[in-house]
Amino acid sequence: MGWQRTRTVLLHEGPFVSLCRDGVIRPDGSPDIYDHVVVDDGVRVVALDQHRCLALVEDDFYLQQRRVLHLPGGGTEGQDPRAAALRELEEETGAVAGELRLLGVIDPLPATTAARTHLFLATSLTPAAVSRDATEVGMTVQWRPIPAAIRAVREGAITEAGSVAALLLAEHVLRTMPPGGQAT
Amino acid sequence: MGWQRTRTVLLHEGPFVSLCRDGVIRPDGSPDIYDHVVVDDGVRVVALDQHRCLALVEDDFYLQQRRVLHLPGGGTEGQDPRAAALRELEEETGAVAGELRLLGVIDPLPATTAARTHLFLATSLTPAAVSRDATEVGMTVQWRPIPAAIRAVREGAITEAGSVAALLLAEHVLRTMPPGGQAT
Repeated sequence: MGWQRTRTVLLHEGPFVSLCRDGVIRPDGSPDIYDHVVVDDGVRVVALDQHRCLALVEDDFYLQQRRVLHLPGGGTEGQDPRAAALRELEEETGAVAGELRLLGVIDPLPATTAARTHLFLATSLTPAAVSRDATEVGMTVQWRPIPAAIRAVREGAITEAGSVAALLLAEHVLRTMPPGGQAT
Repeated sequence: MGWQRTRTVLLHEGPFVSLCRDGVIRPDGSPDIYDHVVVDDGVRVVALDQHRCLALVEDDFYLQQRRVLHLPGGGTEGQDPRAAALRELEEETGAVAGELRLLGVIDPLPATTAARTHLFLATSLTPAAVSRDATEVGMTVQWRPIPAAIRAVREGAITEAGSVAALLLAEHVLRTMPPGGQAT
């Protein structure tokens, strides 16, 4: 029968993070409480240029207290995930994608939040102006060949879950594509 | 200079999820607040038997309101990640691992929580008794060949971030291992 919800109480509502306490009936029939976090869905983009190099961005993360290397992306901010992916890519790297393919969707912390991260492969890139928002001050962009990005994942230089999953999925998709197949 | 913390207020302390509001100085020098979630670190395990099949478990997830297919694993519960990985593997599948190799560590939602997920490859398995806890009632185990598990990731049947990352990393490690190389 699975879990059943009996009520929801909003414990805290913040600008980016809210916390709810639900009354639940567990799958074994016993009553319980279940606290969960409400945050925005996310997007991450593997943006591949004509030299088969992809964009990585780096900026200061508060909770990790260090600069973090990751794929372009961020919160959907209420947009459709495809629109959010195109917006974040352009804001952070100045690239406009002509083609956008869904690589997959992951659940970053499914026992804690229902928020999902949507993973995309962007190709047919053309340059535009970078227009970072206030949270993206100090961000730098680099373009790396696919094998170098995969090596960065293997060596632990890229650890953000959406970036790790999108890079490994993109590598798998590109490697197993039929001869003459298009990435888009 | 990065971010600086000026104070921390515990907004809510729950059995599994706590919420903090920090006073911060942003990298651009402006003061702000930053809400973040404190949850247990996690572990996920690719457990590979002598037939090169790996264990997948399935159980009811509350927030997704469906059964979720994922790698054995869970919270560290204050243990060292290696010990937690061995415990969760044995509890959920009844397999005791003779060898345990770290595949990597990911940050599931680094802007929301500092919690990390530790990913392992377990080999040299021997059977033991399954001893699931109350949260694992209704869990089922299946052993699948590596390519079938990767296909499940590609097709969106496995979406939990730690499971996706660990499966793709394990596949990459096993595929690129030097001839005669050991997984452990």
